[in-house]
Amino acid sequence: MGNCLQCIGCFTCLPKNTNIRPSFPAVCFVWQIAMIILFGVFMRYDAETDAHWPQYKQSHNITSDSENDFYFRYPSFQDVHVMIFVGFGFLMTFLKRYSFGAVGFNFLIAAFGIQWALLMQGWFHSLDYTDGKIKIGVENLINADFCVAGCLIAYGAVLGKVSPVQLLVMTLFGVTLYAVEEFIIIKILRAQDAGGSMIIHTFGAYYGLTISWVLYRPNLDQCKRLQGSVYHSDVFAMVGTLFLWMFWPSFNSATVYHGDGQHRAAINTYLSLAASVLTTMAISSLFQKKGKLDMVHIQNATLAGGVAVGTAAQFMLTPYGSLIVGFFCGIISTLGYIYITPFLEKRLKIQDTCGIHNLHAMPGLIGGIVGAISAAAATEDVYSSAGLINNFQFVGPIQNRVPTIQGGYQAAAMCVALVFGIGGGILVGIILKLPIWGDPADDGCFDDEVYWELPEDEESIPPVLEYNNHMTNKHRDMSQSSFSVEQS
Amino acid sequence: MGNCLQCIGCFTCLPKNTNIRPSFPAVCFVWQIAMIILFGVFMRYDAETDAHWPQYKQSHNITSDSENDFYFRYPSFQDVHVMIFVGFGFLMTFLKRYSFGAVGFNFLIAAFGIQWALLMQGWFHSLDYTDGKIKIGVENLINADFCVAGCLIAYGAVLGKVSPVQLLVMTLFGVTLYAVEEFIIIKILRAQDAGGSMIIHTFGAYYGLTISWVLYRPNLDQCKRLQGSVYHSDVFAMVGTLFLWMFWPSFNSATVYHGDGQHRAAINTYLSLAASVLTTMAISSLFQKKGKLDMVHIQNATLAGGVAVGTAAQFMLTPYGSLIVGFFCGIISTLGYIYITPFLEKRLKIQDTCGIHNLHAMPGLIGGIVGAISAAAATEDVYSSAGLINNFQFVGPIQNRVPTIQGGYQAAAMCVALVFGIGGGILVGIILKLPIWGDPADDGCFDDEVYWELPEDEESIPPVLEYNNHMTNKHRDMSQSSFSVEQS
Amino acid sequence: MGNCLQCIGCFTCLPKNTNIRPSFPAVCFVWQIAMIILFGVFMRYDAETDAHWPQYKQSHNITSDSENDFYFRYPSFQDVHVMIFVGFGFLMTFLKRYSFGAVGFNFLIAAFGIQWALLMQGWFHSLDYTDGKIKIGVENLINADFCVAGCLIAYGAVLGKVSPVQLLVMTLFGVTLYAVEEFIIIKILRAQDAGGSMIIHTFGAYYGLTISWVLYRPNLDQCKRLQGSVYHSDVFAMVGTLFLWMFWPSFNSATVYHGDGQHRAAINTYLSLAASVLTTMAISSLFQKKGKLDMVHIQNATLAGGVAVGTAAQFMLTPYGSLIVGFFCGIISTLGYIYITPFLEKRLKIQDTCGIHNLHAMPGLIGGIVGAISAAAATEDVYSSAGLINNFQFVGPIQNRVPTIQGGYQAAAMCVALVFGIGGGILVGIILKLPIWGDPADDGCFDDEVYWELPEDEESIPPVLEYNNHMTNKHRDMSQSSFSVEQS
Repeated sequence: MGNCLQCIGCFTCLPKNTNIRPSFPAVCFVWQIAMIILFGVFMRYDAETDAHWPQYKQSHNITSDSENDFYFRYPSFQDVHVMIFVGFGFLMTFLKRYSFGAVGFNFLIAAFGIQWALLMQGWFHSLDYTDGKIKIGVENLINADFCVAGCLIAYGAVLGKVSPVQLLVMTLFGVTLYAVEEFIIIKILRAQDAGGSMIIHTFGAYYGLTISWVLYRPNLDQCKRLQGSVYHSDVFAMVGTLFLWMFWPSFNSATVYHGDGQHRAAINTYLSLAASVLTTMAISSLFQKKGKLDMVHIQNATLAGGVAVGTAAQFMLTPYGSLIVGFFCGIISTLGYIYITPFLEKRLKIQDTCGIHNLHAMPGLIGGIVGAISAAAATEDVYSSAGLINNFQFVGPIQNRVPTIQGGYQAAAMCVALVFGIGGGILVGIILKLPIWGDPADDGCFDDEVYWELPEDEESIPPVLEYNNHMTNKHRDMSQSSFSVEQS
Repeated sequence: MGNCLQCIGCFTCLPKNTNIRPSFPAVCFVWQIAMIILFGVFMRYDAETDAHWPQYKQSHNITSDSENDFYFRYPSFQDVHVMIFVGFGFLMTFLKRYSFGAVGFNFLIAAFGIQWALLMQGWFHSLDYTDGKIKIGVENLINADFCVAGCLIAYGAVLGKVSPVQLLVMTLFGVTLYAVEEFIIIKILRAQDAGGSMIIHTFGAYYGLTISWVLYRPNLDQCKRLQGSVYHSDVFAMVGTLFLWMFWPSFNSATVYHGDGQHRAAINTYLSLAASVLTTMAISSLFQKKGKLDMVHIQNATLAGGVAVGTAAQFMLTPYGSLIVGFFCGIISTLGYIYITPFLEKRLKIQDTCGIHNLHAMPGLIGGIVGAISAAAATEDVYSSAGLINNFQFVGPIQNRVPTIQGGYQAAAMCVALVFGIGGGILVGIILKLPIWGDPADDGCFDDEVYWELPEDEESIPPVLEYNNHMTNKHRDMSQSSFSVEQS
Repeated sequence: MGNCLQCIGCFTCLPKNTNIRPSFPAVCFVWQIAMIILFGVFMRYDAETDAHWPQYKQSHNITSDSENDFYFRYPSFQDVHVMIFVGFGFLMTFLKRYSFGAVGFNFLIAAFGIQWALLMQGWFHSLDYTDGKIKIGVENLINADFCVAGCLIAYGAVLGKVSPVQLLVMTLFGVTLYAVEEFIIIKILRAQDAGGSMIIHTFGAYYGLTISWVLYRPNLDQCKRLQGSVYHSDVFAMVGTLFLWMFWPSFNSATVYHGDGQHRAAINTYLSLAASVLTTMAISSLFQKKGKLDMVHIQNATLAGGVAVGTAAQFMLTPYGSLIVGFFCGIISTLGYIYITPFLEKRLKIQDTCGIHNLHAMPGLIGGIVGAISAAAATEDVYSSAGLINNFQFVGPIQNRVPTIQGGYQAAAMCVALVFGIGGGILVGIILKLPIWGDPADDGCFDDEVYWELPEDEESIPPVLEYNNHMTNKHRDMSQSSFSVEQS
C-alpha cells in the first residue's frame, strides 16, 4: 500500500484540472438512472401509504385515519427535513466565499443520498419477504434523512477542499457503510439509538475526519485569506444553527415509539440544548481576549447538547439529567474549538474545516456513553414493565435480556460506529486520493470560483474600479500637466 | 383594439410618474374595507371551527377531538404558508437591488390575495345554501394559499417591472380568474389536481407570461446593470429555494383525503424533487463553460419535480414513476433556462424575469399530462375499489365514470387552465398598460429605489468616498508641491 | 431614592469597562448550575411524558396514543419555538452592525429564560401536591417559550445599549415577574389570554420601555452612524418578520383547548394579520415622501394584528371581527413608528430601539380591550353552553360567573399586566443602572465590536486598502520621476 500511495503521490504532483464537465454530469446521470431502475425493481408503498389502506384499516380494526403513521411522524419528518437542507446547508455558509458550495453541494449530497439510503436501509429493514419488495412509508423518509445527516457531517470536515464528484463518491460509500453499521447496531446488537449519537454522529464524524486525514493538504495556508468569515456570512450561518437547534427535539424524537416515547425524547433534547447554550457562551467569553464572544462557538457548540442526548433521548433520563449532559457538552465542545482543532491540524494532520470533531465526534461519543449508562441503570420501578419493553424492545430473541446487559450492548454499538467510521474513512479517503476527481489545488480551496459561475459583485467592487479609472485619467492629466509645466 | 392600443401607446410616451402616494394607499384602504364588509356579510366559521363543535361531535358520533380536521391539515397548512411567504418571497430576492421589492411585494400580494381568495373560493366551494354564508376552516386557508401561489408565480414574470398598484390589480383579477377556473376544473369537469400542476402552475405561469408579453419593454437593457445578482443575494434566494423544496411534499399533500392519500402524495413529491436536483446539477454543469454550476438553475430547476408531480401526487404513481417525472423535469427546466428564456425574450418578446416558463409553465404542463395518463391507467387491481373512489371521487353524478374517461377530463382540465391563463393575461395586461398605475420607466426597473426608502449603504460606499476625499487632498498637496518645486 | 440615583449617577461618570470576562461566564455558570440543582429537586415528567403512560392510558380508558397531548400541541410548539429563536432573533438584525448581538443575545436570553420559566411557571401551575414535584409536558414547553417572548420583547427596547450580563439579569427578573403576573391573571382573576396580548405583550413592552427610560442615555447620538440599517441587514430582518407573521396563528392557538378552540384561534389570527399587512403598507406609503414604503414599518407593524388578536383569538370573534382588529392595528402601529417613537425619545426620554411601543405595547392594550369586550359580549346562543365553559372555564369556583362579569375581570387583568410591567421595569432598571454590569459607553452602542470577535470584512475593505498601497507606490514613483525630471 505504501507503493500505491507513493504512486498516487506522483499523480498529485500534476497540475490540478478542476474541470468537472465530463465527469460530474456523467456521474449524476448514471446514478440517477440507476436509482430509477433499482426503485422500479424494488420499491413499493407500504400498507399505510398504499391505496389499499381502507382494506388494511378494516382488517386491522383501525377506526380512524388519524392512526395512520403519517400523522404521528410527518410534522417531525418536516422538521428533520429542514435540519438536513437548511440547517446543515446554512451552518456551513460561514466561509466568506464558499456559501454557494456550502448550501449547493449540501443540497446535492442530500438529494442523492436520500434515494440511495431508501434503497440500502430498505433492503436491511423494510424488505417484504413475501414479494421481495421494499415497502416505504414516512418512517423510511425520516431514516433516509438521518442517514444523509451522517454524510453531511462528514462533508463538514472536508468543506471547501473537495470536488462535487468526490462528494458524490463519499456519499455513495457513506450511505452504504451507514446502512450496514445501522443494521449491525439495531438488528444484531439490538442497541437503541433514537437520535443517532452513535449511528449518525460518531460514525459521520470519524468518517469525515479520517477522509480529511487521508486527503491532508500541507499547503492549505495558500488560501488562508479565504478561510475566515465575513460579517454577513456569519449571520447566514446562524440561520443554519438556529434551525438545527430548534428542530433537534424533532430529530431525536422522530422515530421513537408513539406516545410517551416521542414526548419524552423531545423534552430531554430541548433541555439539553438549552443548557449547552449557556455553557458555550460562558466558555467562549472566558477564553477570549477581553471576554468577547466568538461566533464560531455560538454557531456550533450550542448544538452539542442535542448530539449528546441522542441515544438517551427516549430514556427516563430525567429533566436534570438532560441539563447535565448539555452542561458538559457545551463546555467540552467549545474547548475543542479552542484547543483541539488546532492540535488536530498541527499534530495529527487532520484539517477539519467546520470543527466536526468538536460538534459531532466528542459529543457523539459522550452520547453513546450516556446511553449505555442510562440503559444499564434502567429499572422496572422507573420504567414500568411495559415501559421497559417499549424502550428497549425486550421482545422476541432478546426477551430475557436485562438492562445491565443492554448497557453492554450499547457500548459495543459505539465501538461498531467507531470502527465503521475510521475504517470506512480510510478506504474512501484512498479512493478519493486518485487524481481523477477534479479536486481543487491548494490555492483554490474554499473558493466558489472553482465550481460555480459567480456574479460580478458590483456592490463593493465597481466603485473602486470606477474610481481607479477615474484616478488613472487624473494621473495622466496631472503627469502631463506637470510635464508640460516642466517643459515649458 | 388596434386603435385603443395605439392610443395607450401615446400615453406611455409621457414621462413616467412613479409616485404611488395617492393611488397605492387608496387602493389598499378601499379593498381592505371592502373585504371587511364582504366578510361581515358572508363569512362564518364552519362546524369544526365553531364553538358549537362539542354538539356537532356528539351528533356525528365523533369520539375524539383528534378527528377535527385541524389536526389532519394544520401542520401541512403551516408548511404551505412558509412556502408562500418565505419560499416565493426569498426565491425572488436574487436580484442585486430588488430584494425589498421581492420579499415586500410578495408579502403584499399574498396578504391581500388570501382574503379575496377566501371569498371567491368560498362562494364556489364552501357556500352553505341554508343560510347563504361561506363556512371556513383550515382547508379553506390552504386553498387560499394555493390560489395566491398562482398570482405569485405570475409576479415572477413581471418582477421588477411593475408598480405595487399594478400588482394589486393583477392579484385581484388573478384570484378571480383562478377561482372560476378551479370551479370549472374541480366541480364541472371533476378532474383531480391535488398539487395544482394545472390549476396553480399552468394557469399562474401563462397568466404572468402573457401579462409580461403585453407589457413588453423594448428598452429594458437600460437597466441591465441591475438585472444580475450579487453573491449574498444569491444566498438569500437559496433560503427561498430550500423552503419551497423541503415543504413541497406538504404542498402537494395538504388537501388530499386523509390517510393513505396524504401519505402517498408526500412520498411521491419527495422522490420527484430528489431526482430533479441531480439532473438539474448535471445539465447545469454540462452546458456551462468549464463545467461550472449556475446558481440560477439550482435555485429554480431543482423545484421542477415538485411542480410536475402535482396532479398525480396522490395517485399510485409508484416511487420509480415519481423519480422518472423528476428526472425529466430537472433536465427540461434547466435547458429552458439555457435556451428557451433567451428565445422567448428575443423572438416572442416575452421578458420573464424569474424564468417562470421553465419552472412553472413547462413542468405544469408535464404535470397535467402525467396526471391524465396516470388517471387513465388506473385499475381497480392497483387502487382497490375504495381507493378508486377516494382518489377520483367516482360518486354522485360521476359514479359510473371509468379511469380512461377520467384521463380525458384531466386533459380537458389542462386546456381550461391554459385558456384562463392566456386569456386572462391578455385582458389584465391591457388593463395594466393604462398609464395610471405608476409603473417605473425602463431605466428604473429592478431598482428598489423607486418604491422603497433605502438605507444608505455605509458598508461598501463610505470607505471609497473617504478615500476619494483623502486622495483628492493628497493630490492637491502633491500637485502644489510639484508646482512649488518647479516654480522654485 | 433621589440620593440613590444621584449616587449611581456618579458611578456612571467613570469610564466604561465593557470587559465581561469575569462576570459573564461566572453568571452563566452559577445560574446553569442552579438550574440543574433546582431541576434535580423539583422537575419530573408528567403522566403523558413518563414511561408509565401505558398504565395511565389503561387506567383512563384512552384507546390511542394519538390522544397524547404531544400530538395535539407539538407542531404548534415547534412553530412557537421558531418564532422565539428565529423570529425575534432575526427581526432585530436590522441594525447594520448589531446582527451578532441581535441573534446571539436573543439566543442567550431565550435559552436561559426557558429553564427558569419552566421552574417558575411550574411552581405556580404544574406542581403536583402529592409529591411536591413539578410535572412537565409539551404544554409547559410552550408556556416557557411564551414567558421568554415577554423578555425578548423587552430586549427590543434596549437592543444595542446593554451588556449580556444586564440581559441575563433582566431575564431573571422578567421571567419571575411574568410568572407571578400570569398566576394572578390566570389563576386568581381567571381571565383568558390565549395569545398573551396582556400577559406577554403588554407586560413585556412596558417592562422593556420602563427599563429603557431608567437607563436613558442623553448622548446616544454619538453612535448615530450605527443606528440605521444596511440593505442586507434589512433583508435579514425580513426573515424574522415573516417567520413571526406566518407562525403567529400557531402562537395564539398553541395552548387553547383541543378541537374548535385551536382551530378558531388559528383562523382569527391568520385573518387579523392579513389585514394589518395592507393597512401598514398603505399608511407607510401615505406618510412618506413620494409615497415610498419604509422597511421599518413593513418589518414591524404588519405583525400588530397578531398581537392585538391575542386575547380574543379563541373567542367567537367572527372572521370580519378579526379583519377589523388587524385593520386598525396596522394603522395605529405604523403611525406609532412615524409620530410616537420620536415623541417618546424627545419628550419622555424613552429610547426604544425596535419600536416595541408600536408593535407590542399599543396593540397589546388594544388586544386586552378587544378581549374584554368580546368576553363581555359572549352569549350562550353564539357559543353554546359547552362552548362557554370551554372558552371561559366557568367551572369550579367561578361556575356562576357570567360573560359580562368576565369582561370586567379581563379588564382588571390588563391593569395587572401594566402594573407589573411598569413597576417591574422601574425596579430592574435601577438594578441595571449599577455600574458593575459592563454596559457599553454611549459611543459604543449598537456595535458588535464591543462584545464579539468580529471577522475582518475583506469583502469591501481590502480592495480599497490594496488600491491604497498601490496608489501610494505609484505616487511615490511619480513624484520621484517628476523630481528627477526637474533635477535633470
